[in-house]
Amino acid sequence: MKIKKILIANRGEIAIRVMRSAKEMGIKTVAVYSEADKAAAHVLYADEAVLIGPPPSAQSYLVADKIIEACKLTGADAVHPGYGFLSENAQFAEKIAQAGIIFIGPSVEAIKVMGDKLASKQAVKSFDVPLVPGMDEPISDVEKAKAVAQKIGYPVMIKASAGGGGKGMRIVTDPKDFDEQMTRAVSEARSSFGDEAVFIEKFITSPKHIEVQILGDQHGNIVYLFERECSIQRRNQKVIEEAPSAVLSPEQRKRYGEAAVNVARSCNYYGAGTVEFIADAHLDFYFLEMNTRLQVEHPVTEQISGVDLVKEQIKIAQGEAISFTQEDLQINGHSIEVRVYAEDPENNFLPDTGTLSTYRRPQGAGVRVDDGYEEGMEIPIHYDPMIAKLITHGKDRAEAIERMKRAIFEYKIIGIKTTLPFCEFVLNHPDFIDGSFTTKFVEEHFTPDHVRKEPSEDLERVAAIFAFEQYKAKKERLQYTPAASQKSGWKSRIKRD
Amino acid sequence: MKIKKILIANRGEIAIRVMRSAKEMGIKTVAVYSEADKAAAHVLYADEAVLIGPPPSAQSYLVADKIIEACKLTGADAVHPGYGFLSENAQFAEKIAQAGIIFIGPSVEAIKVMGDKLASKQAVKSFDVPLVPGMDEPISDVEKAKAVAQKIGYPVMIKASAGGGGKGMRIVTDPKDFDEQMTRAVSEARSSFGDEAVFIEKFITSPKHIEVQILGDQHGNIVYLFERECSIQRRNQKVIEEAPSAVLSPEQRKRYGEAAVNVARSCNYYGAGTVEFIADAHLDFYFLEMNTRLQVEHPVTEQISGVDLVKEQIKIAQGEAISFTQEDLQINGHSIEVRVYAEDPENNFLPDTGTLSTYRRPQGAGVRVDDGYEEGMEIPIHYDPMIAKLITHGKDRAEAIERMKRAIFEYKIIGIKTTLPFCEFVLNHPDFIDGSFTTKFVEEHFTPDHVRKEPSEDLERVAAIFAFEQYKAKKERLQYTPAASQKSGWKSRIKRD
Repeated sequence: MKIKKILIANRGEIAIRVMRSAKEMGIKTVAVYSEADKAAAHVLYADEAVLIGPPPSAQSYLVADKIIEACKLTGADAVHPGYGFLSENAQFAEKIAQAGIIFIGPSVEAIKVMGDKLASKQAVKSFDVPLVPGMDEPISDVEKAKAVAQKIGYPVMIKASAGGGGKGMRIVTDPKDFDEQMTRAVSEARSSFGDEAVFIEKFITSPKHIEVQILGDQHGNIVYLFERECSIQRRNQKVIEEAPSAVLSPEQRKRYGEAAVNVARSCNYYGAGTVEFIADAHLDFYFLEMNTRLQVEHPVTEQISGVDLVKEQIKIAQGEAISFTQEDLQINGHSIEVRVYAEDPENNFLPDTGTLSTYRRPQGAGVRVDDGYEEGMEIPIHYDPMIAKLITHGKDRAEAIERMKRAIFEYKIIGIKTTLPFCEFVLNHPDFIDGSFTTKFVEEHFTPDHVRKEPSEDLERVAAIFAFEQYKAKKERLQYTPAASQKSGWKSRIKRD
Repeated sequence: MKIKKILIANRGEIAIRVMRSAKEMGIKTVAVYSEADKAAAHVLYADEAVLIGPPPSAQSYLVADKIIEACKLTGADAVHPGYGFLSENAQFAEKIAQAGIIFIGPSVEAIKVMGDKLASKQAVKSFDVPLVPGMDEPISDVEKAKAVAQKIGYPVMIKASAGGGGKGMRIVTDPKDFDEQMTRAVSEARSSFGDEAVFIEKFITSPKHIEVQILGDQHGNIVYLFERECSIQRRNQKVIEEAPSAVLSPEQRKRYGEAAVNVARSCNYYGAGTVEFIADAHLDFYFLEMNTRLQVEHPVTEQISGVDLVKEQIKIAQGEAISFTQEDLQINGHSIEVRVYAEDPENNFLPDTGTLSTYRRPQGAGVRVDDGYEEGMEIPIHYDPMIAKLITHGKDRAEAIERMKRAIFEYKIIGIKTTLPFCEFVLNHPDFIDGSFTTKFVEEHFTPDHVRKEPSEDLERVAAIFAFEQYKAKKERLQYTPAASQKSGWKSRIKRD
């Protein structure tokens, strides 16, 4: 069945991202928006827009019934959930289906299984997917636990079975500390969760976060679109991603890819999905979880594979078979994404809000910007502080990096502090350049004084842009010339370095 | 020798295009500008800028000595000429070399040979390059000419040896008209040019313009980067280009490419160059001329080949060997460029001038904009009326076309009439879609009433954007909502279709 009108149950850049592909397919789009998003870019972009309530999201973007009513009101025959919000909510997917609307995503069953840490590990077990070495069953006996630790090999992590948020979690590097740490963990687990059972598993010291993009259709075809390396994180959240990984060999790539396909097969997955792995220093990898939706960082995969993932999602939701095979897929060059967050890297990445008084995007070869704002708009406090995703593509990693630096130079954002100076720091760091970085990168290498202070060259440039703004406002010719008139009359010069 | 600082002897989009690649290579840039370009985008982009006189170009951008003085003033060790202006001026290239500055382009000798229609045909003759069947020597005797025409086969073109601009040009389809047309051509040639000699050559009725991008280095390596089809022209000037051509088979592609390499070999060419062919209905092709510089439409080749042509130009000028072979080059997807001219397609493409009161570029996957303007800037009357080049890239031609339509939808230009509505007409035309179009396309298919009048949907959208502008100006919340409040309080709707 051909989809005619898609309601995008999301906001910001991802809403526009989805609308772009829909538009290219000749499909109409419906935006939903909260009262805080009345003048948002995604509302302007859509063919129709429906107001669904006030902020916060719990009263609008997270209310399944309002989304379904908006579908009925506009005659939308499909819903794209984007990422976040209701995108991995099995109940929402179920309600959509019950309302006779196509959910652009996987089956309810797949969302359920992969949304549960234990169930997902149970599911993939018989599908030849490596799991972090450890125990299936919780334990509270110290001696038995110690034997397990010995078998797994140190360092090991002891974690409360009922735990979360780091509570009841202990890392043991030396066997002689085991008894004491185990005792503490068990007691912490008992007092925090009323359950003294703990798991023992191998602790990966400085891991890399490597994930694999997969696509499956409703006819049982599943392919992988290579990996993304997402180890540059602050507060456990990704800031810089790239595809392919700088360090995998073709053989390793194939192993990661095939393991990801197996994960997808374990839950009869269809749609776009991402299998996240944790990789150790030898690049041996272990299944972490599967995200049953489009990922923020999906554009780097699009750049290197030439596949429009949103179009594929839509086609799969329509029941079409994937039109290419694993063998058809090839890696073309290298792509990097940096997330432009409204955050202050000099102040522990604290979210910043305000107005984008100047907002100029970079342009030119190999540069893509996915965003949800225009100059003059405000970054609202109610939502994710991501302003934009800046993506570059080059013939190789070195070119993608140089392009990214050039694009950051061109990106003029005034009025809001952003993660761009932090990203520039990373791009210039030897551990990033040689690919050896891990998820510990920020912790190990970054302090606020590393953020590049705007050198005078750039301040002068910003001043020139401001002058130009005034020129625009006043509609009179900018006197932007001769710092020094030299020798002859026709010659003068602005020197900025 | 590594180049450290490049002066770009040009303006507008191509100046910025060159600066982007230089920046990615860590090379400093110098802009030159006329008094009319004091606040131009390329001046803002460069590291340094030198004023070189008033408009028109004859007093600034075309004055070789001023360019050379600007190099000396800033210590630039290389000059990139862009296209147009001094880019194919052998004398300029010679002067640059004499001043000890690197000219980023081919040898003076190659510019000279390929800049001369007769000399270039003479040069390629022994290099297995097909030429339009005709005569090497001019003729004025009717009977001899008729015998030649008979041998070549009708239709033939009679053209004045000293001619130009269509004067003394006659097309003869039927042999019985030959005598009369020849007599007229000779007499017209005599009165117009004082020289009655004419050439007879085969007339290609509805030709395609297909050109091949080549790269050569100073070590004798020459490769072709496939073809561009540039048949959509108005007033003999290209408006839409694409790569690869929609109609060439791999075998034909190879023949075009190898012929182009032969042309380059005939003049020991190095640098980036373009060999233009005219193709007949069977896609048999004939050498027209070689452009010894970067071409306006070079981005479509960059998109499908992954090669940054400006970087290659710079590396070649530094004496480096090309780092890839013909076999390494592959076509990745399809790319289209539309030129956004400040022209009125409803009024015979008459140039329009004024201020870009609204200027919003399209964004997102597969879209590239190369331009030289910002919102609020004026399109000066002194120079080429091209505002921007809008380039899309897709996995195949259909996707590149759909992306282009989407990008045109997103492109908001208010204050200046542009060729965008005309381009949209072309993109939707069956002859464009099936690839059968020729250089006669505009003549045969386009009348001003074909230009899409903005439908109400778009007017409403533009109005919304205007409202948003006001909102920005007033810094108060835009009342951009409920056309009709429906059913419950949380729900309202803007319907635009």
